[in-house]
Amino acid sequence: MNDALTAAWRRAAGHQRRFDARFAAYFDSLTDPAGSRLEIPRHGTFPARALELVRELSLRGGKRLRVILLHEAAALVTDDESVPGLDEAAISIELLQTHGLIHDDIIDDAPTRRGGPSTYYAYRQDFPDRPDTALALAVLAGDLAAFLAGRVLLTGTLPPDRALAMAAVHADTAAATVAGQLLDLERDFHPTPDLDLLHEVTEYKSTRYSILAPLRMGLLAAGADLAPHDGELRRYATALGIANQIHDDWLDLFGDPQSLGKPVGSDIRSGRRSYAVRALVAVCDESERKLLDEALGDPGCDDDTLERLRGIARAHGIDRQLRADADRYARRAAAQTTTWREHWRPDAVAFFEHMPAWSVTRDR
Amino acid sequence: MNDALTAAWRRAAGHQRRFDARFAAYFDSLTDPAGSRLEIPRHGTFPARALELVRELSLRGGKRLRVILLHEAAALVTDDESVPGLDEAAISIELLQTHGLIHDDIIDDAPTRRGGPSTYYAYRQDFPDRPDTALALAVLAGDLAAFLAGRVLLTGTLPPDRALAMAAVHADTAAATVAGQLLDLERDFHPTPDLDLLHEVTEYKSTRYSILAPLRMGLLAAGADLAPHDGELRRYATALGIANQIHDDWLDLFGDPQSLGKPVGSDIRSGRRSYAVRALVAVCDESERKLLDEALGDPGCDDDTLERLRGIARAHGIDRQLRADADRYARRAAAQTTTWREHWRPDAVAFFEHMPAWSVTRDR
Repeated sequence: MNDALTAAWRRAAGHQRRFDARFAAYFDSLTDPAGSRLEIPRHGTFPARALELVRELSLRGGKRLRVILLHEAAALVTDDESVPGLDEAAISIELLQTHGLIHDDIIDDAPTRRGGPSTYYAYRQDFPDRPDTALALAVLAGDLAAFLAGRVLLTGTLPPDRALAMAAVHADTAAATVAGQLLDLERDFHPTPDLDLLHEVTEYKSTRYSILAPLRMGLLAAGADLAPHDGELRRYATALGIANQIHDDWLDLFGDPQSLGKPVGSDIRSGRRSYAVRALVAVCDESERKLLDEALGDPGCDDDTLERLRGIARAHGIDRQLRADADRYARRAAAQTTTWREHWRPDAVAFFEHMPAWSVTRDR
Repeated sequence: MNDALTAAWRRAAGHQRRFDARFAAYFDSLTDPAGSRLEIPRHGTFPARALELVRELSLRGGKRLRVILLHEAAALVTDDESVPGLDEAAISIELLQTHGLIHDDIIDDAPTRRGGPSTYYAYRQDFPDRPDTALALAVLAGDLAAFLAGRVLLTGTLPPDRALAMAAVHADTAAATVAGQLLDLERDFHPTPDLDLLHEVTEYKSTRYSILAPLRMGLLAAGADLAPHDGELRRYATALGIANQIHDDWLDLFGDPQSLGKPVGSDIRSGRRSYAVRALVAVCDESERKLLDEALGDPGCDDDTLERLRGIARAHGIDRQLRADADRYARRAAAQTTTWREHWRPDAVAFFEHMPAWSVTRDR
């Protein structure tokens, strides 16, 4: 592995560890009279329970790649390891993710998330006889996470213009992400959606909050002016986002459940028109298509059928094609960083240069 | 009617008319490349449709009392009729309301809202065979309104510290309102909820965004420092909020459907523990209680039963008691304004002094 990347991952492990403690402290502060306390009704248990479930799901977060991107983005312009506002930005982005997951799991009727119950199903356990109440509470818990995500950027100690710029990035990102979730629903109405549609779903549903927002907020927190760099940041984020998504979709069809630690085939079973599913639909002959159509959207589709579909995909070269596509977009992202060396710190640029290639080979 | 109030209502009619045009122009600007445009995916129709439904419901708003409160709050400190930031604050508060209505109508499975289809049911008309898709889209449309509500305060031309202070009020208000909606669901689990619980539901679910936020934002936009006035603003808002809610609940049991322009009895039919329903439950004897228990939460409860329950309520003096309670809280709110005369403009103070009494006699 590249030296700069090795050093960056060492930094990353520190950010991740520190962030999880910081995120827990943030939730503590919400109920602490001395903190930036949230006013919670004195009566009743429902508001406190919603906050508890938002906290639980948030702290069950995984690799915190967004947090790492945020710190590396700040490192593009400063070697100060404790830039004010980065913690708030990280909490905001992670809470936006929590919000999205809670509402997504209502939409998908998903029982589990991040190795535990989804918020919706946690409420269904609280109220086994009242699914409507569980649904209502989950909608509201997601709303609470959404508003907390915006609030954390406004209650810190940053200079007002900087806090405001970061809050504006958050608001644009949040609205774009909702648009992406809407487009994601629409995508699955098409048997073989246009590739441009898939790219746009990726851009709006994932890239904006997972890549572009951390880049923008990290730079803003470190005092950079975004305007001259907007185009290059977007091109980098867009290419890396597509590379990541193609790789994720590849893993869901061809990945190894053992090393992934989760079952594969979920895109086929849920009928989701992923990059892999779309490619498969496009190449199938008539008899293959029949098998595929039966499997798509069938939650009970068995492992044998999945293995046959995987064989069909391999025979048509989809395995290789998807890996080549992911590699190509990863290289395209990396190529964007060439000009970054002219104005930003080389160590952090090296992280962004090498990260895409690492990203599309993980778990391969 | 008091002269100051008459003058204020004349101003109010102007604010209302002007605001509706301004709100429509705001929605236009979201899709205008020259405006503070929202990035919407180029593909697909779902994101544009969600924005259209948010717009439709928002523009179907009624009396815009919140907008009037906002302008009168600014008038407490300035005679400038076009204070920068008031329009953005008004749009933000109305969008927060739109968000709440969209999600409330999912929670209550309500087909109509503001004389048209609820967003959820508009989607059910779009997708008659796919109720799950309609639900998912309505959740997301509500999310979009929520994020737009925060965003509009960040994209204007206010000085950063003022914009930030208003955005912080918005964020606190939004989180408090969700807590209120959660507590509102919990309230109906109690046969006779504690009166303090009802007051707290009112405070969090309605008062914060309908009264306190307009007061705070109006003053902030006009350049006032909120800190010295926080206590008096809260006491005023809390008392007025309870007065309004008791009056609304009174109207729903005793009001005249003709002059209200909508059916009454919805609290009984939905089993909602309103101030009126709570009072009724508390005084019923055994046979009356049987009738009431059957009616509570029965959407098909007929007008005869409702009339009998109304008679029972009158016989127990609940009609008079609720009016007296509403009057008492209205007077308590008005009394708060005595000290306001010491530091704020008399015309606007007169509006806030007389408004509570007007508020609890409307449609009586």
